[in-house]
Amino acid sequence: MSQTVVQRLQAELDALWLVDPHTHINPHSAPSQTLADILGYHYYTELAHSAGIPREQIEEPGLSPREKVGRIVPGLAAIENTVQYSWLLEICRDFFGFEEERITESNWERLYDQSLAVLSDPGWEREVLRRSRLTGVFLTNDFDDPLTGFDTKFYIPCLRTDDLVFRLWQSETRERFRKATREEAWDVASLRRGLDVLFSHFLKNHTRACAISLPPDFSPAPVTAATVDPILGALRNGQTLSLDEQSVLARFVFWCLAEECAEAQLPFDLMIGVNRRVYPSGVFQGQDLFDSRCSLSQYAALFNAFPRVTFPISVLAHGVNQELVSYAWIFPNVVTSSHWWYSNIPAFIEPDLRSRLQAVPQTKQIGYYSDMYKLEFAKPKFGMFRRVLAKVLAEDFVLTRGWSETKALELGKSIMCDNTGRIFPER
Amino acid sequence: MSQTVVQRLQAELDALWLVDPHTHINPHSAPSQTLADILGYHYYTELAHSAGIPREQIEEPGLSPREKVGRIVPGLAAIENTVQYSWLLEICRDFFGFEEERITESNWERLYDQSLAVLSDPGWEREVLRRSRLTGVFLTNDFDDPLTGFDTKFYIPCLRTDDLVFRLWQSETRERFRKATREEAWDVASLRRGLDVLFSHFLKNHTRACAISLPPDFSPAPVTAATVDPILGALRNGQTLSLDEQSVLARFVFWCLAEECAEAQLPFDLMIGVNRRVYPSGVFQGQDLFDSRCSLSQYAALFNAFPRVTFPISVLAHGVNQELVSYAWIFPNVVTSSHWWYSNIPAFIEPDLRSRLQAVPQTKQIGYYSDMYKLEFAKPKFGMFRRVLAKVLAEDFVLTRGWSETKALELGKSIMCDNTGRIFPER
Amino acid sequence: MSQTVVQRLQAELDALWLVDPHTHINPHSAPSQTLADILGYHYYTELAHSAGIPREQIEEPGLSPREKVGRIVPGLAAIENTVQYSWLLEICRDFFGFEEERITESNWERLYDQSLAVLSDPGWEREVLRRSRLTGVFLTNDFDDPLTGFDTKFYIPCLRTDDLVFRLWQSETRERFRKATREEAWDVASLRRGLDVLFSHFLKNHTRACAISLPPDFSPAPVTAATVDPILGALRNGQTLSLDEQSVLARFVFWCLAEECAEAQLPFDLMIGVNRRVYPSGVFQGQDLFDSRCSLSQYAALFNAFPRVTFPISVLAHGVNQELVSYAWIFPNVVTSSHWWYSNIPAFIEPDLRSRLQAVPQTKQIGYYSDMYKLEFAKPKFGMFRRVLAKVLAEDFVLTRGWSETKALELGKSIMCDNTGRIFPER
Repeated sequence: MSQTVVQRLQAELDALWLVDPHTHINPHSAPSQTLADILGYHYYTELAHSAGIPREQIEEPGLSPREKVGRIVPGLAAIENTVQYSWLLEICRDFFGFEEERITESNWERLYDQSLAVLSDPGWEREVLRRSRLTGVFLTNDFDDPLTGFDTKFYIPCLRTDDLVFRLWQSETRERFRKATREEAWDVASLRRGLDVLFSHFLKNHTRACAISLPPDFSPAPVTAATVDPILGALRNGQTLSLDEQSVLARFVFWCLAEECAEAQLPFDLMIGVNRRVYPSGVFQGQDLFDSRCSLSQYAALFNAFPRVTFPISVLAHGVNQELVSYAWIFPNVVTSSHWWYSNIPAFIEPDLRSRLQAVPQTKQIGYYSDMYKLEFAKPKFGMFRRVLAKVLAEDFVLTRGWSETKALELGKSIMCDNTGRIFPER
Repeated sequence: MSQTVVQRLQAELDALWLVDPHTHINPHSAPSQTLADILGYHYYTELAHSAGIPREQIEEPGLSPREKVGRIVPGLAAIENTVQYSWLLEICRDFFGFEEERITESNWERLYDQSLAVLSDPGWEREVLRRSRLTGVFLTNDFDDPLTGFDTKFYIPCLRTDDLVFRLWQSETRERFRKATREEAWDVASLRRGLDVLFSHFLKNHTRACAISLPPDFSPAPVTAATVDPILGALRNGQTLSLDEQSVLARFVFWCLAEECAEAQLPFDLMIGVNRRVYPSGVFQGQDLFDSRCSLSQYAALFNAFPRVTFPISVLAHGVNQELVSYAWIFPNVVTSSHWWYSNIPAFIEPDLRSRLQAVPQTKQIGYYSDMYKLEFAKPKFGMFRRVLAKVLAEDFVLTRGWSETKALELGKSIMCDNTGRIFPER
Repeated sequence: MSQTVVQRLQAELDALWLVDPHTHINPHSAPSQTLADILGYHYYTELAHSAGIPREQIEEPGLSPREKVGRIVPGLAAIENTVQYSWLLEICRDFFGFEEERITESNWERLYDQSLAVLSDPGWEREVLRRSRLTGVFLTNDFDDPLTGFDTKFYIPCLRTDDLVFRLWQSETRERFRKATREEAWDVASLRRGLDVLFSHFLKNHTRACAISLPPDFSPAPVTAATVDPILGALRNGQTLSLDEQSVLARFVFWCLAEECAEAQLPFDLMIGVNRRVYPSGVFQGQDLFDSRCSLSQYAALFNAFPRVTFPISVLAHGVNQELVSYAWIFPNVVTSSHWWYSNIPAFIEPDLRSRLQAVPQTKQIGYYSDMYKLEFAKPKFGMFRRVLAKVLAEDFVLTRGWSETKALELGKSIMCDNTGRIFPER
């Protein structure tokens, strides 16, 4: 009986339309052009590499898309058990008419051709959005993105700030900052004026969130201008910053961004816990990992200092989820946000979701975002989440607490659909 | 079939009478007087606040109980999903005859009146105890509580020592200490004599436990009198203690308490992991959180030094539960104790309970305490635990290991009922 | 229906033959000689002690095997709930014809006699291997083990290196090193020559792994010979090493071992996270615990430095499992390895296994090892794992992802059987 309830709820959840509140979609080229865009997603290249395919083979310069697919396919047999492989299979079956059980060295070329026919259709972008039931897609935009040439009401800009916080001391970043803001940022006043320019630009273009990913040892704190001015001055003099100085500058810029968010009434997405380039010989985007010794205690001062800024929090480590639940239960401005990266598999989504639904106000939960780079991934990724959500709603609410399926479904709709508009309001 | 086994076990567990081994009940006013006592429980005020109700609105001075309820009810819609809301609904349905699906701004006044009729009945205390099947209730008593005016065989005193350990340097605490013990505590000898007085007083009044809550970075260690005498001397001279001195004093007093417990053969409840006032703008009792980077390693020296003291351990962070299981499996004097605060939701109770039942001797587990402030909460809180316990007994023992339901039920009875008498013997 | 799928899968898994990739079997005396060998397993002595039996009673010198059993049996009633007790009962039922529900003070003597008859049979070793479906058993060998007098193709040597890394400064270890290698190790060159001798000796004897257990705060890093030569020189002069010097030496030897493994193409089993002698008054082998504040970040430099060495990783803390999953998903040379010690109960195996099967290439997972000291334990321990594996395969693959049972079974066979040969190839 439980299974039937699950299936009914899942069918209802599948029918819902929604806005995807965090992706890496390029709005100028949103769908995949070939199967290489799909198999080139870092989940497949990194897992295939982990299973034994040399990086050099996958990333050899000058490979055609077809050749690239041919290089990755031999690595698929070893990863058929992974949930990421199940997304791939679902894409191939639902979108490209693939009917076999596995993608192999003997059948991939036909699949490549079938997919090419579908992906080349000029109506494919609209079609894949319709089939994925997407009514909007949040982007991840560099701070110097002109935000032109696309519909910013559908492809919603989001100001990504990792470069500003962690790489402002690099000449390349400073050059981009200068071009985007006409400010030199050789002192705090100029830096702040430049940030104002960036926020104005993004806000004019329907931006609905500021966002950043943070290493596990980052601990935000206010820094005085008097501390930072000499550091910016050192940069002006061409000096190299010590790691300590870099870190002071990072904390300063981060705090300025929170101030800008407060001013602009913009939510500040924090994606907490990633260590970059832990495996530097890994494939592109397959080099980052984490350290689970990380705590939201590090963010308590921030949450207290900015009561008017909403902080949707994603945590990379499953072990930090209970803190996230508890901080969102206590702090009005802390919101739980999806299941990120290494926590984005059903084995972690299910317990994490269960605890959030049991203890965080339903209005303060962003159920899921796809984090996708190409539109084809929304359907299987949200599909995975919907299956887990249906299971948790059935078990914890319908069966254990005696809720009607209608009421359980409303809860599911809140966290998967309605809260996006509530937490990231249109401007 | 599994579901039927669960239901049968749950019905049997529901029929058991028990002593609640940890509460914050005021024995002079144990049941609620109005619905405001129930909705004023910090779970509702903090969740409603987290969902958007300003603290000032909830805690405005001079509110009548009815007005206070009226201020909280608008926050309930957002928290209907929480398990804490389900306790509330269960209280209203089972005790006050409430029959609607939700408590709303349009029906709460009638509910208020209905509940008032029930709560005003002079026989209500006896009635709610009977319906909750309670045969005793442990209290949480300040060290200077006179312990008079109530039946200490039913409302069992427990010496709570947070003030002694963490606030003995405050003049208010010292004044209370002086009044309660007639000792000045300007040196170690006097401090120790005072502690002797307190323990004698509590032991004469049927106290069955000493208890304390501890921050995640606390690490007990012996401290010499020679180290502490100058610190107490500094207090005598009106000097302010440094944080280091406060911390040395805390460790010293804590160790003295363990010595007193050894002497008195009194169990020492340790509730490990709370950080106080993390969100100082939160509602009353809704300001504390935790840092999951905490380990029972910090307590190994204590467990080794006091082999005759039983330490029932509650951990705030779900992530510390495996250490608790393992320490209780190895150390004869370590006992697992209930599911505390942020871990007291089925999403964490179930895996934590499962691991304890699989690896800790059944005689060394305190299944559950309610931690309640008002008697009405025992029934729904123990009810929640019984549901989870029935599920784990059914799945892990009856279905997986082939136990009879009778045998599984005995195990449930041990940890929920019998162990309280075994671990906290009457004196 | 789910239950039927589970049962069918379990029956199929039960029929598989396999090599046990990590045990502490003594190949000269592999099966138990009496019931005391079984009840003397530290799980029973430590749990019985934890439940109240004094260590002195269990470990009194000069006890006969029968007396020893008689000392432990009174402690069994309190631990009947544990999964370790269920292994014991399964051994007694399946191997010794025991038919009662519990082992008690009134029936254990008959059980002792029954078991003695079975265990004394000269064909018992072959019989227990056959019934346990074992085709090979990895050992744990001291570095100075002569490896003679047994079939090293069946009882496969494994070079255990804890003594070399953590106790080389002790005179007893140095004496053993000298005898085994004819090297004094008063300088780095001699130490390295000695390690070469040990590896040659082990490789000649069909060794298929190097192994070590590590404390939670260990962090491997390269150390120069110039740093270590003075430390070895200090030892030569009879000086005592500081804790820092011991720790430098440990890191140096550890790194040398990784270099030897690279040279020899030998996998290096890392068992990460144990703290020794946390409860020094505990029974033999019942004194060790852990600190869950441990991260695979500490090993990133090692994994990067030795891309050709396969590192099968066991983690003691359940909380580190997600890091293990993620590191094995990214690093080609990191392999997940079984469910170790305090994580070896279904409550932790199930979620850990679930996440590994969802996100780690199927070729990179050692499903299970028994860690046993006596052959009788392979059957119930692998049986426990097979039950959990059948459940996860049924739920996550057959029911959720629509896999055929045949395909799910192949996956189970890969991780439980085939990967041992793939990851620890015969030489």
